[in-house]
This record gives sequence, C-alpha cells and structure tokens, in this order.
Amino acid sequence: MKKINIPAAFDRISDHWSPHIAARLNGQEVRLARIKGDFEWHHHEGVDEAFFVVKGRFTMRFRDKDVAMEEGDLIVVPAGVEHMPQAGEECWIMMFEQAGTSNTGEHESERTKRDLPVL
Amino acid sequence: MKKINIPAAFDRISDHWSPHIAARLNGQEVRLARIKGDFEWHHHEGVDEAFFVVKGRFTMRFRDKDVAMEEGDLIVVPAGVEHMPQAGEECWIMMFEQAGTSNTGEHESERTKRDLPVL
Repeated sequence: MKKINIPAAFDRISDHWSPHIAARLNGQEVRLARIKGDFEWHHHEGVDEAFFVVKGRFTMRFRDKDVAMEEGDLIVVPAGVEHMPQAGEECWIMMFEQAGTSNTGEHESERTKRDLPVL
Repeated sequence: MKKINIPAAFDRISDHWSPHIAARLNGQEVRLARIKGDFEWHHHEGVDEAFFVVKGRFTMRFRDKDVAMEEGDLIVVPAGVEHMPQAGEECWIMMFEQAGTSNTGEHESERTKRDLPVL
C-alpha cells in the first residue's frame, strides 16, 4: 500500500502521448499521460475509457461534437465510440481503463505504445 | 458523452461518508465522497479500491501502518486488506472501485449506504 502523488508523478514522464501506469486495480489501470497536439481518431472495442484533466485543458473530439475538457473535468468515452484528443497546449491527463487496452484502439500506428512504463 | 467537473460536483453532496456515483465504466464506478471524522474498520473481499484526494487531506489507517494522504495522492487498497479512513478536517475524495462494492465492506452497519445517488 504505497501512495503515489499524481501531479508529482508527471515529473517522471517526458514524452507526449506516452501513457504510464500509476496504479492497477480490479483488472483496470490508472494511467497518466502528457498530451500536446493532435492524437489520432480511434476507438476501443468492448471497453470504456475515462479521462480526467489533472492540469491544463484539451478538446475531446467526437465525430458529432467536441467537448472542451477543463481542469478537474472527467469524461467517459463508451466502448466503440470514435474519439480524438487534441491539446493546443500541454495538458496532463489521468485515465482509467481496462488493463491491456491499446492507446490507439483497434488499429496500430507509429503512436501505438506497448509495455507501458510503470511509475 | 457528458463531462462532469469533479470539484464542482461536491457542491451536490451534503453528508459526510455518503458516496455518490460520478461515472461508470467497465463494471467499475467513480465515486465521490466528503469525509470528516473516523470511518470504521472494514475490508472488501475480492475487490480492490482506489482513493484519490481531490481536496484536503486524510489518513488511511491500516492495521500495521498509517498513510498520510495529501491532495493529489492516490492509493490502492488491495482486496481483503482492512483499512479505516480518518479525516481531521473535511476532505474530498474520488474513489474507483467495482460497481456494487459496499462502502462498509463485508459487514453492515448504520453507515452502510445502498442505492448510491448518481451525480
């Protein structure tokens, strides 16, 4: 039972769009990522994904609308729903999702991360 | 896909030790609670529970140690481990746990909450 300070843990993350595992529970993972710029459109079959803004802001784009995510906001992207995070300035996010979920969803790209680092 | 602002959502919670559901995903729940004073010793069979401090501070007591939880800290209480949150001053916490997990774990008391309100 070791605690982790979430804002301080971002000091140990350097790259953008590189999720790091902060905690594991019930087959889920708490992941942290620094994001900046556009990600890519993707979806996750059968698994939901939650995003919480630790610092900064970003836009969660859906095919039919954009949601402006401010500090302290939480949103759940339901399984199968296409989405693309977009951050004008650097933003720190905390995600909750099923262990093993690929960051680029159902397709692989040069942005797909495997063997996520553990904080 | 509706976002919820976590700090602002605490305005809709009045009682202490009364978890409210902020989001659901993958059979899990994101719960918010205002805590103040001592809770009670309990454990959860087979399910882990994570606590994140949104505002304030509290002590997570275990049988063999106390962990001082400050703002921004996250801790996972593994399944089966006895614990008791204790807050000298009011503290706001966000929890991640399996849907249906009882707030008082394996025993019922006057503090057991059923049919948690949804924010």
